[in-house]
Amino acid sequence: MPRCENFLPGDVWLVGAGPGDPELLTRKAERLLTMAEVVFHDALVSESVLDLVPRHVARVSVGKRSGCHSKDQDSINALLLMAARAGRRVVRLKGGDPSIFGRSAEEIRNLLAAGVRVRVCPGITAASAASASARVSLTVRGVARGLTLVTAHARAADPLTLDWPVLVRSATTLGIYMGRAAAAEVAQRLIGAGMASDTPVLIAVNASLPAERLIRGRLSALPFLVEAVSDDDPTLLLIGEAVGPLSSEQGHLQDASSLDFRCETDCFDRQA
Amino acid sequence: MPRCENFLPGDVWLVGAGPGDPELLTRKAERLLTMAEVVFHDALVSESVLDLVPRHVARVSVGKRSGCHSKDQDSINALLLMAARAGRRVVRLKGGDPSIFGRSAEEIRNLLAAGVRVRVCPGITAASAASASARVSLTVRGVARGLTLVTAHARAADPLTLDWPVLVRSATTLGIYMGRAAAAEVAQRLIGAGMASDTPVLIAVNASLPAERLIRGRLSALPFLVEAVSDDDPTLLLIGEAVGPLSSEQGHLQDASSLDFRCETDCFDRQA
Repeated sequence: MPRCENFLPGDVWLVGAGPGDPELLTRKAERLLTMAEVVFHDALVSESVLDLVPRHVARVSVGKRSGCHSKDQDSINALLLMAARAGRRVVRLKGGDPSIFGRSAEEIRNLLAAGVRVRVCPGITAASAASASARVSLTVRGVARGLTLVTAHARAADPLTLDWPVLVRSATTLGIYMGRAAAAEVAQRLIGAGMASDTPVLIAVNASLPAERLIRGRLSALPFLVEAVSDDDPTLLLIGEAVGPLSSEQGHLQDASSLDFRCETDCFDRQA
Repeated sequence: MPRCENFLPGDVWLVGAGPGDPELLTRKAERLLTMAEVVFHDALVSESVLDLVPRHVARVSVGKRSGCHSKDQDSINALLLMAARAGRRVVRLKGGDPSIFGRSAEEIRNLLAAGVRVRVCPGITAASAASASARVSLTVRGVARGLTLVTAHARAADPLTLDWPVLVRSATTLGIYMGRAAAAEVAQRLIGAGMASDTPVLIAVNASLPAERLIRGRLSALPFLVEAVSDDDPTLLLIGEAVGPLSSEQGHLQDASSLDFRCETDCFDRQA
């Protein structure tokens, strides 16, 4: 019997929708969607994921595509609470993993404070999906001892406030979510803080979706590489030796050509 | 149509088995298991996950429970290559996410070098599963700007070589995989590097499994808190303000009592 079989009227489940490919939802997420009576979903959750919601289940799109003002969050909190108090089985469906850049804390806190039973079903986060598509490990013994995930999302005109020397010294693979707009600054700051300018980067656009693109290159070229990426497309920057060319450049290119990649651009050759 | 429908004879898929709960495999992982002709799995992959492998599919346990000597890895590489060359549809099933502490790089490299088509299906990593069970966010605006995952696994008698000041300065939630044995040293080093001794910690043992335990407390008490944990149980340490008590202590305890948690120990009260 599944561990949390009990999805009772008035319960709220925060459910990770994963990176976009409906096959990358967990089996549990799929089950919860079929048990729900109402699903409140982020605007970013793809149509093909929403197709997993049975037709008789109410679907409500909440939240704006870019960022979430506190007012919006208040509205979402109010909607969730209202549905729970009305005795509905409520799913709050969030892109990726609810616990990683999913802004779940406030929703959980608000529901708990009101005495609502709330639980969380994890999802595949973009870093896992992107590295799987690119067939790279985010951690490699002797190369990358760990993984650091941060977001480059900042309000317009606000500077990024990441601790760049610490990111460089961490000796981990860096995963920078929502990295499109800040890519040029990211490269400049990391190099300024001492990261080698030829550090491999992997730009994952629309990871796991039909429109997925994987662009590989070096840190110094990051500002140019992202110019081919639309501002609207979800973009993850992976930076570090671990995401470099597979084994040998040769082996990698040979294999990539035999695969059905939507679009993989390899820009190692273009740079000295 | 699923994106990577084509699982042809001679192909190898590295598949994430997730943290242990068979409901936390992705839908894609489940499909690949049903399409496989042979499944090579880590010893750590749970029986309930292996129950998803159809009966007619060959199952081979590879790898030792603790660590993987290079000799073992060579054997695994040889087995995978042999099965692929024999024209089998091969799944290499790995606990968690293959790209995060999954030691995938060498297997991928080896197969690519031999001209084998290899791809990766991501899995739920322990940090996602543990935070979902505990209903905490690993990232919280203004509290934890990101997430750093490292492993505390070291060969016996080897000291940990993590950069403690950098971990402290990162202002991210720390996830320390295989953290049971090194927990006392972790606490001592982090506090020595300037982390507040009352920083919240969440010890997740057997995350997502029936034997799951979530133990909460403060960093200074970590050495004592882990004494209740067996050396053999997979243990993740989550450290940082983001994993602290939910909203109010009261709200948290009230809610925990109404839930069917296997075992959640809350040790905030015991400390000053």
